[in-house]
Amino acid sequence: MATNNVPNDVAGRLLDLAGESRRLIQAARERGFRTETKADNSFVTSVDLAVELRLRELIAAWYPDHGVLGEEQAPRNPGAEYQWILDPVDGTEEFVRDIPTYGTIIALHHRGVPLAGVLDFPALDLRVHAVQGQGCFRNGTRVSPPAESGAQADAAVCLSARGNFARHHDDGGIFDAVTRAFPNHRIYRSCLNHALAATGEIDAAVAWHERAWDLAAAPILVTEAGGRYETVRTRPLADGGIVFSAVFGRRGVVERILPIVN
Amino acid sequence: MATNNVPNDVAGRLLDLAGESRRLIQAARERGFRTETKADNSFVTSVDLAVELRLRELIAAWYPDHGVLGEEQAPRNPGAEYQWILDPVDGTEEFVRDIPTYGTIIALHHRGVPLAGVLDFPALDLRVHAVQGQGCFRNGTRVSPPAESGAQADAAVCLSARGNFARHHDDGGIFDAVTRAFPNHRIYRSCLNHALAATGEIDAAVAWHERAWDLAAAPILVTEAGGRYETVRTRPLADGGIVFSAVFGRRGVVERILPIVN
Repeated sequence: MATNNVPNDVAGRLLDLAGESRRLIQAARERGFRTETKADNSFVTSVDLAVELRLRELIAAWYPDHGVLGEEQAPRNPGAEYQWILDPVDGTEEFVRDIPTYGTIIALHHRGVPLAGVLDFPALDLRVHAVQGQGCFRNGTRVSPPAESGAQADAAVCLSARGNFARHHDDGGIFDAVTRAFPNHRIYRSCLNHALAATGEIDAAVAWHERAWDLAAAPILVTEAGGRYETVRTRPLADGGIVFSAVFGRRGVVERILPIVN
Repeated sequence: MATNNVPNDVAGRLLDLAGESRRLIQAARERGFRTETKADNSFVTSVDLAVELRLRELIAAWYPDHGVLGEEQAPRNPGAEYQWILDPVDGTEEFVRDIPTYGTIIALHHRGVPLAGVLDFPALDLRVHAVQGQGCFRNGTRVSPPAESGAQADAAVCLSARGNFARHHDDGGIFDAVTRAFPNHRIYRSCLNHALAATGEIDAAVAWHERAWDLAAAPILVTEAGGRYETVRTRPLADGGIVFSAVFGRRGVVERILPIVN
């Protein structure tokens, strides 16, 4: 695999960014934070904003010509070849409720190709990161390619909530079909579903109608761990945005899910 | 509320049992453990067995005339008025996969009435316990009765996986109806769904086709926290066992769920 587009120092920078994000989130958990409701009724907190600002500041200092796309603020250098994609707190609803399944998503793409990514879970002391050609790591230990020999009849699949499937366009029938075919399922938050599918702690994830930042890190994590990642829908929205749907994890289980969602 | 059936020392004993269980589980996470597959294809580990044995030993020493009903071993003193009900590791599948949502369930019932219960989550550093007439506590801090003013249109509901609904008797249609009516749902494990509903971190839980030990602690936790607990199905099984289904959490949300499941 060509790795010559990967900046030399990117693994270290990625972990620095995740470390900084975790420190800010932990401090906010201890000292408190402000919560507001956005126009779409989702939550945003002073922590989401503070983390994104700080990550943008570090990226701009290290890579002044790179772009940044984040959930909470306007894009920086949107035409740049290298784009950092950020979701400072994925699962803000969980963060506000003190349910530990939220996390930070950070990825670097080059002309749309994911080169590096990290998912960091401050309340779970869990970090999964990968760099193209260098493997996928869980808390610093390299993840082995997932075994394909699991009891597939009872495969453990994580998926988005039905609300994700039915928003933007009513794909609720796909939620129903997946939950029927894979009755041993869980529904956490995007970032935790993704991390567990990458590390092989679950067999596969079905992520539906997610924004670019939600799925920014998952492809490189999954493929570097030896799994399969398939984008199955790309849907333009009336507001000019796009939502993506994807299936990923153990190859054998992904193969069984694809005909159900297609 | 009559509290004269509550043994004086029960809160301390309950926390001693939860502490002992957590120590054994943490030690096993560090030192390793054996995993086997049971006849019904579910997992059991050497930790499940060791925790249940140790809790039984402590209970027998403290309360020689009390009964014990546990997931892994034969009942002790099944005719006794006081019954301790144990699930040493609820979510063994998660424990084996190192997903931190598993926990220990311990409860004391008197003639079928729940008097005290605890849910302990070693990997989340979370413990929720309650004693009749004494309130419900989250990591030692009393839980306030949940506010009823949340945005009910977007109520956060945790439910059992579709596999639970469809096993024993096909209630899959109820899973479908609940996920449609409450699209902002999550699916963790029994014990975490229960703990979050008791503390108000989610609005309500829908627990389906669970065994007595799975639901042993939830009623006292929820009612002592000021929420509503309703058993909605009691289904005898061919093997002589019984499975229970229940809806519990914030009163307003429980009221909206009941007509959907009935």
